[in-house]
Amino acid sequence: MGQVTNTNARFIAECLAPSGIDLYHQSVVGDNPKRLTELIRTALHRADVVILSGGLGPTDDDLTKETAAEALGLSLTFYPGEWARIEAYFAKTGRTPAPNNRKQAMFPRPCRILPNPNGTAPGCIMEKDGKAAILLPGPPRELEPMFRDHAMPYLLERSGHKLYSRELRIFGIGESDVTYRLDDLMKAQTNPTIAPYAKTGEVTLRITARCGSAAEGEALVLPVIRTIRERLGDAVYSDRGEPLPLVCHNALIARGETLSVAESCTGGLLSSAFVDLPGSSAYFVEGAVTYANEAKMRRLGVSEATLETHGAVSEQCAREMAEGLRARTGTTYALATTGIAGPDGGTPEKPVGTVYVALASERGTVVKRLALQGDRTRIRTVTVLHILDIFRRNIFTY
Amino acid sequence: MGQVTNTNARFIAECLAPSGIDLYHQSVVGDNPKRLTELIRTALHRADVVILSGGLGPTDDDLTKETAAEALGLSLTFYPGEWARIEAYFAKTGRTPAPNNRKQAMFPRPCRILPNPNGTAPGCIMEKDGKAAILLPGPPRELEPMFRDHAMPYLLERSGHKLYSRELRIFGIGESDVTYRLDDLMKAQTNPTIAPYAKTGEVTLRITARCGSAAEGEALVLPVIRTIRERLGDAVYSDRGEPLPLVCHNALIARGETLSVAESCTGGLLSSAFVDLPGSSAYFVEGAVTYANEAKMRRLGVSEATLETHGAVSEQCAREMAEGLRARTGTTYALATTGIAGPDGGTPEKPVGTVYVALASERGTVVKRLALQGDRTRIRTVTVLHILDIFRRNIFTY
Repeated sequence: MGQVTNTNARFIAECLAPSGIDLYHQSVVGDNPKRLTELIRTALHRADVVILSGGLGPTDDDLTKETAAEALGLSLTFYPGEWARIEAYFAKTGRTPAPNNRKQAMFPRPCRILPNPNGTAPGCIMEKDGKAAILLPGPPRELEPMFRDHAMPYLLERSGHKLYSRELRIFGIGESDVTYRLDDLMKAQTNPTIAPYAKTGEVTLRITARCGSAAEGEALVLPVIRTIRERLGDAVYSDRGEPLPLVCHNALIARGETLSVAESCTGGLLSSAFVDLPGSSAYFVEGAVTYANEAKMRRLGVSEATLETHGAVSEQCAREMAEGLRARTGTTYALATTGIAGPDGGTPEKPVGTVYVALASERGTVVKRLALQGDRTRIRTVTVLHILDIFRRNIFTY
Repeated sequence: MGQVTNTNARFIAECLAPSGIDLYHQSVVGDNPKRLTELIRTALHRADVVILSGGLGPTDDDLTKETAAEALGLSLTFYPGEWARIEAYFAKTGRTPAPNNRKQAMFPRPCRILPNPNGTAPGCIMEKDGKAAILLPGPPRELEPMFRDHAMPYLLERSGHKLYSRELRIFGIGESDVTYRLDDLMKAQTNPTIAPYAKTGEVTLRITARCGSAAEGEALVLPVIRTIRERLGDAVYSDRGEPLPLVCHNALIARGETLSVAESCTGGLLSSAFVDLPGSSAYFVEGAVTYANEAKMRRLGVSEATLETHGAVSEQCAREMAEGLRARTGTTYALATTGIAGPDGGTPEKPVGTVYVALASERGTVVKRLALQGDRTRIRTVTVLHILDIFRRNIFTY
């Protein structure tokens, strides 16, 4: 009915991609016995392993296990141990299972039963004549850990591989430019693999090696990371998948320094990026969302002359916002943003997307003019990334 | 490879759900000629209409159109008019098409060509012997408008229906409680249909009627909206799909009133919800992210005695934050949030999720204690919804 986005398919594909196990088909079908049977038979016919998600619940609509077993020519029997586990799961939340739930303790014999710490339905792996069906629960918070902890090790064992993975985060170079600069590496890749993922305003590369051990995996991945760092320079801000706010957060905590933030066009987004991180109270002293000129003057001490002569979206105003806030709070650093996020307010000299960001510290004040593309939300989001990027480069230089 | 989540499948399913057109199968396959041919043949065999997305680009990998035409027994011919349109699309961005792009002007004859204002690849509808294949480009920002503007009208024309839809937004009642209270309506539904969608902390209901005209659709939908409003009361805050910040934003603009915001645990999220809306400069005067106690005292005038006696997470502190900010800014309303978002900082009296929100106006100050569940991000997000809900109820009462 379109109420749920199938993130399980993407998650499983992403896990399988570097493993050398080819994923050829993804199919979605409703809880209809005839269509489900037909689909499972087709899938088992065309692949060695079929991964099924959903339909492991207690109701009559939940048919996946029965249908898969029948397609493999296996029959289900009652597992008292699994039933005890289901009763214990219910007891934890003060409930008792319904008779219907007994279905969830039925499996072929033999069968690998996959424990589900996050729900009542255990998963399982059924095998017959070299074919396998891996049955997983539908909710992502149940499926994802079960796939990672049980299905993936089974698949890697079948294929004789282990995986080792690292995530590079990049700001300041677009995805097409990243792939252009790494074209030869990406075309030649077999092991490790290099997979790019574009987020708003930034690029992530996942480097994954098939290997016999973590040490061997690291030995395969590290030279690739080194080469990529040589090509992309300090645009690479993490090789362990940390997002930009976390990189700044960790640096502030490690250095025992403090921060305050003055925001106009980002309107609280920048403060929020820090406050969202547990432990930010150690350094985050204050944020000022000074969207109105009056607030810029009263709270930050921006001069009326600056606002009149240069306007609120100007290098001078950004500088005075950061310096004014830092003077008032006494923090090690103060950050400021002011810009035209649109859709209105643009002029020929300062079109929508014109943003100034500033960083003030005892070492002086850095101001940068940005010319950003996109809608209001994108301009605000990318502004936050730019000032964080300036901030981390500045911190790491000293 | 798991780099993209298939949102097209969900989007199409959501559009089709209320139309009475049954969606039985969704399949995903790579750009492999053999597997693609097999899949398209199977799909055309088991359905009247097959919707295909992706593979309409200019490269050799883009096979969808050729494969679908072959499966239907149609051959492709060159359409000079489409070629001119593609050249014009390139010219707009100062480029010229490559010879490869000629592929994108090849279609069967006859064929309904679907214009693509957001990319180079036109879509199309091919028909043969009562079967149809609808070909759409892959990127959601190209597919979604093309599906809505061209494919959906074609499908409704085939099925003899129109659709009329309204979205109810609800805060303060959980999804299971909403569906419980509307159980009889939802079970009896045929036309209009009622589809619930849960978002973080709120519930949305889409009411959609199959109808001959918009007026007839409205006549079918409005009585259902009236019944739902009777059952759910003022938890329904919009029947036109406006999110909570927008409802408050519109009310503030209509009333010519002003707003300031003091945030502790939400750390800028609440300010940002307003600043994200174009036109918010009309009323949004100032936000203060006073995460540190020192900032609560200096910027808002919270008393040291309050912080010592009651702590920063207390009714008194929330009240003083809102009242202090309103006194300093002179705005019609001031909102404040203070709470323990976790993961640390909880105590037996004030566990993680304890949050106080306050609204100050000339009519006095309202403070509410919340006991929220979930992780740090969820607690912060739901806090914002709660204070916005208090705000809109307060505004609409006067």
